[in-house]
Amino acid sequence: MNLNNVFAAVKKASRSLNCMTDETINKILLALADETEAQADFILAENQKDLDKMDKSNPMYDRLLLTNERLSGIASDIRNVASLPSPLGKVLKESVRPNGLSLKRISVPIGVVGVIYEARPNVSFDVFSICLKSGNASILKGGTDAHASNTAIVSVIHSVLDRFGVDKNIVALLPAGREATGEMLVAVDYIDMIIPRGSAGLINFVRDNAKVPVIETGAGVCHLYFDQSGDLKIGSDVIFNGKTRRVSVCNALDCLLVHESRLTDLPALCHRLSEKNVELFADEKAYSVLRGNYPSGLLNKATSESFGKEFLDYKMAVKVVDSVEQAIEHIAEYSSKHSEAIVSADENSIAMFDNLVDAACVYTNTTTAWTDGAQFGLGAEIGISTQKMHARGPMALEELTTYKWIIKGNGQVRS
Amino acid sequence: MNLNNVFAAVKKASRSLNCMTDETINKILLALADETEAQADFILAENQKDLDKMDKSNPMYDRLLLTNERLSGIASDIRNVASLPSPLGKVLKESVRPNGLSLKRISVPIGVVGVIYEARPNVSFDVFSICLKSGNASILKGGTDAHASNTAIVSVIHSVLDRFGVDKNIVALLPAGREATGEMLVAVDYIDMIIPRGSAGLINFVRDNAKVPVIETGAGVCHLYFDQSGDLKIGSDVIFNGKTRRVSVCNALDCLLVHESRLTDLPALCHRLSEKNVELFADEKAYSVLRGNYPSGLLNKATSESFGKEFLDYKMAVKVVDSVEQAIEHIAEYSSKHSEAIVSADENSIAMFDNLVDAACVYTNTTTAWTDGAQFGLGAEIGISTQKMHARGPMALEELTTYKWIIKGNGQVRS
Repeated sequence: MNLNNVFAAVKKASRSLNCMTDETINKILLALADETEAQADFILAENQKDLDKMDKSNPMYDRLLLTNERLSGIASDIRNVASLPSPLGKVLKESVRPNGLSLKRISVPIGVVGVIYEARPNVSFDVFSICLKSGNASILKGGTDAHASNTAIVSVIHSVLDRFGVDKNIVALLPAGREATGEMLVAVDYIDMIIPRGSAGLINFVRDNAKVPVIETGAGVCHLYFDQSGDLKIGSDVIFNGKTRRVSVCNALDCLLVHESRLTDLPALCHRLSEKNVELFADEKAYSVLRGNYPSGLLNKATSESFGKEFLDYKMAVKVVDSVEQAIEHIAEYSSKHSEAIVSADENSIAMFDNLVDAACVYTNTTTAWTDGAQFGLGAEIGISTQKMHARGPMALEELTTYKWIIKGNGQVRS
Repeated sequence: MNLNNVFAAVKKASRSLNCMTDETINKILLALADETEAQADFILAENQKDLDKMDKSNPMYDRLLLTNERLSGIASDIRNVASLPSPLGKVLKESVRPNGLSLKRISVPIGVVGVIYEARPNVSFDVFSICLKSGNASILKGGTDAHASNTAIVSVIHSVLDRFGVDKNIVALLPAGREATGEMLVAVDYIDMIIPRGSAGLINFVRDNAKVPVIETGAGVCHLYFDQSGDLKIGSDVIFNGKTRRVSVCNALDCLLVHESRLTDLPALCHRLSEKNVELFADEKAYSVLRGNYPSGLLNKATSESFGKEFLDYKMAVKVVDSVEQAIEHIAEYSSKHSEAIVSADENSIAMFDNLVDAACVYTNTTTAWTDGAQFGLGAEIGISTQKMHARGPMALEELTTYKWIIKGNGQVRS
């Protein structure tokens, strides 16, 4: 397989987006939302072909499944993207130098964004619409399990682009299978950024093999530290919410760190978790206090495996620490730099935590469940970056731009 | 060799920088500037050991050479870094959500920055001082040719850090040789960003083998397009300046694109270049006009090798194009996305060039020689990024930061 022709066509098409107004982009997005609803029967029939190949007991089945209701939700999301302000053409810095040169730093599209994802066909719509709104062409590498669905979705997108006379190569769906992924990762002349969305295995594979710059997203090993001065009601509420709101998402809580002076409050902090049958993996001190105060069938002794683990399940580790410093050390060792929280009433502890915890999002007295572009008021997002370069936390429209320095002179030369 | 202990020590030390005030950082930098001058004899003696191993005819000899004057210049650069405003702790975005959550996006250090460079010992001072000012620990991988010099420099830095009671692991010099480079490139748990500085070969090696995120810097294949409406005096001046100011730097001009309606002006545009014996590699049309109007010993026919080449020498390619669109196409094919210029009096051509040329810096009616952090008013810089992610163009203090979301609540949970 040689996909360089495909990549080159997308690169070329991406340049045409520099001349497209936000008004046109929004018209295309609104037309796509309508067309998605109008073509629901076609999309669902193609989706059924994928579903037929998957066992219904597979946990991925529900992610693969499209329905009329889900397509309406997708159409509504696309309309929402159209309603957001354009992230392009913003003057980020501006100056006139003593020699009269005028400098402007202006936000521009990144160019070509490649996204590698698993069996969620809705991601194809998300990526295309967010990339188009931010002036980027997109290369979609969806999961093999969803290939018929993705092919149908991209054909619907292409039909809308055709109607607007837009080069349809601003979005390309790659063939199913690993080989296409491999070619993508080294296409440095054509692809400007790759975002892997999915399991830790996929993300590590991409990071380890890519020559194209990568934004790592989604791995969330999230901690909550309950400080000596923490409010019990707040602690209990935000632990329950952080752990049980949706266990399969990256901002879900994985580990509770509790100050040893509050050991006697540990059963109360964890009490509500038993309503949802959350299994605890408690270190020795925590175990000794929880035993008899938490359902025994849900209480385990922690092992070294229990820490630094993203459970994505009704499971949580519990560890006792002797200070905020020790909590911070634990987080430094085990965090995936996604979302970390402290529950405390002590300004010094909070300041130290904010300052020393190295993560995209650091919370005080609230839940890690907030880490999300829409909840942050950023609109749609394409993932949560756990990197420190380029973008950190929600990757919304602005995070899908780069900038250009535009310098105007009248013949100045440098001595 | 297993450098993970070294890397881990630097990572740990980097956290201590989160608690250091800008005032302390500046005191350390000023003390280092003084100590660099006080220890000049020692540094120069160690530098001499490196120089003794290199042939004086080697073009790297001058880059390796330190002198009292150069050390004074270095000390002055360090004092300048101390005088710059801190890039840290800036509130980049701020909002209060309808549910009362307060969000702040705040600039913070990247953490540990690794820099790989060749035989320029002054880079060791530059990297350390710029990284310290931006709150980052640094890992230095200098060239083998400069190892005695770099060892001396880092020992001077360590002696100053000792005096201030600062963990000296905030800067580490790695052993000479390729093996250390290899270990650095995969140290994803310890190093947050790697910047290769040097030849295209080094940069490509790093990009192709790194698992740690990389900022590519310095490759500059720079074009100037002289438009149909271009002013002859401005064109002649900025071509001369862009090509001959310093041929060994990345912002030097490599290729002149000239609109065919201005072919008769080509000899005048190029005339001054002959003062500096600039060799031209002209395409057929350009050659036919230059023949007899440019010194024959300096005039060559262009080959396919002449375009997309960073000459770093008194050499320049010349090509005739029929439109601004064709100039833009040529640049899209051959540019390294560093610095590109147009000389024109036509607003439409200029707007099209600004909009469609994909480069860090796009100039109108002035020279590409301006691409430099200090010239842009950004202060000291660590290189010119030719990437589109994270930072583009001069990598000054702000570009060595990332951000963190700090979210404050009073018990809010997400439904």
